[in-house]
Amino acid sequence: MTDLPYIGQQARAAARHLSRATTEQKNAALHAMADLLDEHQDAILDANASDMRRGKAAGLRDNLLDRMLLTPQRLATIARDTRNVARLPDPVGETFDHAELPNGLRVHKRRTPLGVVGFIYEARPNVTVDAAALCVKAGNATVLRGGSDISASCGAITHVVGLALEQVGLPATAVQSITDPNRDLVRDLLRLDQYIDVIVPRGGAGLHRFCLENATIPVITGGIGVCHIYVDATAAIERAVPILYNARVQRPSVCNSMDVLLVQREIAPRLLPAVAASLGAAGVEFRADQEAFAVLSDDPRSTTWKLSRASAADFATEFLALILAIRVVDNLDEALEHIALHSTGHSEAILTNDSAAADRFVSEVDSAAVFVNASTRFNDGGEFGLGAEIAVSTQKLHARGPMGLQELTTFKWVGAGDWLVRA
Amino acid sequence: MTDLPYIGQQARAAARHLSRATTEQKNAALHAMADLLDEHQDAILDANASDMRRGKAAGLRDNLLDRMLLTPQRLATIARDTRNVARLPDPVGETFDHAELPNGLRVHKRRTPLGVVGFIYEARPNVTVDAAALCVKAGNATVLRGGSDISASCGAITHVVGLALEQVGLPATAVQSITDPNRDLVRDLLRLDQYIDVIVPRGGAGLHRFCLENATIPVITGGIGVCHIYVDATAAIERAVPILYNARVQRPSVCNSMDVLLVQREIAPRLLPAVAASLGAAGVEFRADQEAFAVLSDDPRSTTWKLSRASAADFATEFLALILAIRVVDNLDEALEHIALHSTGHSEAILTNDSAAADRFVSEVDSAAVFVNASTRFNDGGEFGLGAEIAVSTQKLHARGPMGLQELTTFKWVGAGDWLVRA
Repeated sequence: MTDLPYIGQQARAAARHLSRATTEQKNAALHAMADLLDEHQDAILDANASDMRRGKAAGLRDNLLDRMLLTPQRLATIARDTRNVARLPDPVGETFDHAELPNGLRVHKRRTPLGVVGFIYEARPNVTVDAAALCVKAGNATVLRGGSDISASCGAITHVVGLALEQVGLPATAVQSITDPNRDLVRDLLRLDQYIDVIVPRGGAGLHRFCLENATIPVITGGIGVCHIYVDATAAIERAVPILYNARVQRPSVCNSMDVLLVQREIAPRLLPAVAASLGAAGVEFRADQEAFAVLSDDPRSTTWKLSRASAADFATEFLALILAIRVVDNLDEALEHIALHSTGHSEAILTNDSAAADRFVSEVDSAAVFVNASTRFNDGGEFGLGAEIAVSTQKLHARGPMGLQELTTFKWVGAGDWLVRA
Repeated sequence: MTDLPYIGQQARAAARHLSRATTEQKNAALHAMADLLDEHQDAILDANASDMRRGKAAGLRDNLLDRMLLTPQRLATIARDTRNVARLPDPVGETFDHAELPNGLRVHKRRTPLGVVGFIYEARPNVTVDAAALCVKAGNATVLRGGSDISASCGAITHVVGLALEQVGLPATAVQSITDPNRDLVRDLLRLDQYIDVIVPRGGAGLHRFCLENATIPVITGGIGVCHIYVDATAAIERAVPILYNARVQRPSVCNSMDVLLVQREIAPRLLPAVAASLGAAGVEFRADQEAFAVLSDDPRSTTWKLSRASAADFATEFLALILAIRVVDNLDEALEHIALHSTGHSEAILTNDSAAADRFVSEVDSAAVFVNASTRFNDGGEFGLGAEIAVSTQKLHARGPMGLQELTTFKWVGAGDWLVRA
């Protein structure tokens, strides 16, 4: 029987311990994690092999099985990423907003760990290490719940992480995994507000919705992107097309890839055939509104393109695949209206040579990241210089966009006085 | 029939409008609100009088009735506070964290409104204006739900606020109140995540719990403080006692007042009688642990003090009254343990002349505000220099401690490139 309140108590106690750990101690823990992941590679790969056997027997799809798979090479990459986290600056203890106030109080804010962070994720064993490493560096304890398809892998990895923590004098309970496959435990975990400070789900829209519906703990949702790029009449075709190609084709299955292309009417007859020729050659399927469809089907090459009329649903879908919805709009106003209605608040871009249009787009689009003449693919912790990323928030509280180390911290007010009373 | 989804849609549309309003326009709205609160004073006071009649007929307690009451003087104070918000700097549009990254992207963060903020509060009509004023200044639309005991007052005030918004060309729907007394509406409001970005409850622990249990929208809980002051052996009695007096007596009914005094054993025989003499004269009742009780009951003046033995519950209670729980501890370690176990994370203080003890207390106490040689009463937006405050957060995400204008905003990432693709 998994005793969730006990896990919560252990995590809370470990969090107090971890919040007092020095940077050196936390970095030593990360290097020990990397070392032991290598040393205990056989045990981890054995556990993963049993998950894979169960997964195949259960008829899981190939792309899911590939996400689940660990190899010596993948483990080496995970270990390298863990060492990279050790090299990042420690956010804990930083002070800011210093002020001496008229009432005599000297105040500042001091960055502190969040406390206990809960991660709920799907069948990606690497998230177990990523979450553990970033949480340890930020001074947080963590309770992990990976998909039940990878419970053996999560258990084996968490055991090794615990050994590493103990090796440097930190409690193994700072990183705990719930490996009991009983799905009711997820619902109970989401109500453990006495012990857990925040839940970060990593997975599809269904998981995020489930967390919102059931949690009494604050949840940071994200990672769902219906991303738009608007190309206005001033854009140069030959410069716009490579960005659109990059945004849709480079990694079709990720949340910051482009789903919807909005094209200003004036440039549509020149832009759309060039887009279709370039992206079509990479196998992209086009779902076009009436006007875009007319332009594209007029092109002699259109017989070689996967081209159909878009449904309303196509403009509200994160495809995660080589599919692009296309709509022709009058102008920036109509593009902004469309985005306000359909965006999931993840990443949007404008391609333009008109700086006034760029300014307005940046001001009015209410998304975690807004780009001018750059691919939506840049909404990423690594690309934004955070060094590492554990999730991409699309809600507006605390963290927006990529969540790195700093986003796994909070702060406290510190006030000092010379034996001061409030007047 | 109150149509909540319609209210949500209206708020969302108004939020887009408000996010584009200039500082001048928002300040004009605040001055118009202040002017019209004065002009329409009779209508507001009439509505309030009807709430008061209903409240008296329903047998509400005097302190509740006093909170509900509006007078010309109270309205004038509310109007003056609204003009003060107009004088505060506009947080929206500020940019920060500028960087030019190795990938060629120029990034920064830009402060933006949260969008739509929902307030759920008890029978305090002034919160209607406070919330409206701060939300308008921060560029947010707001949906207000005041206690059903003040529905007429809220309705009248919201009507006047709407007139003020329209006077300066902003939509009246930027500030909406739900005045239908049906309590099921609160539950439905908490699930309006399609339209509302954050819920800020203002009220007792029961309201906060109800919000956590029922909301699918992020909730910022706070305002509940079991606040501790620890006095160690190095403190000077004559300097410590005035701080303890201030913390308990100045305003007993507020969340940042002291509930629990922890005293290091060595100083207890000298400190406790001095505390009891000073605070006892102000009518404070003492609930002492065995050791503190022994010290105090030994004092010849003890017959004049309200003194009893503390129960376990007394050390987990926000008294909101002239009551103080007292415990004698061995040392800083025991004080920190006690606080870790019992604190609600609001405000704690240490009184000491030992700077190492002060540093450790500040490092290890995990509360929104931690004070050295100053009263817990300083945990307040005004005292911290925020200019205004709409709530005090005791959770760790987004905002911690007093929430002013900046805490009613979020940010977006802005990335610009020279027609840049991700490598």
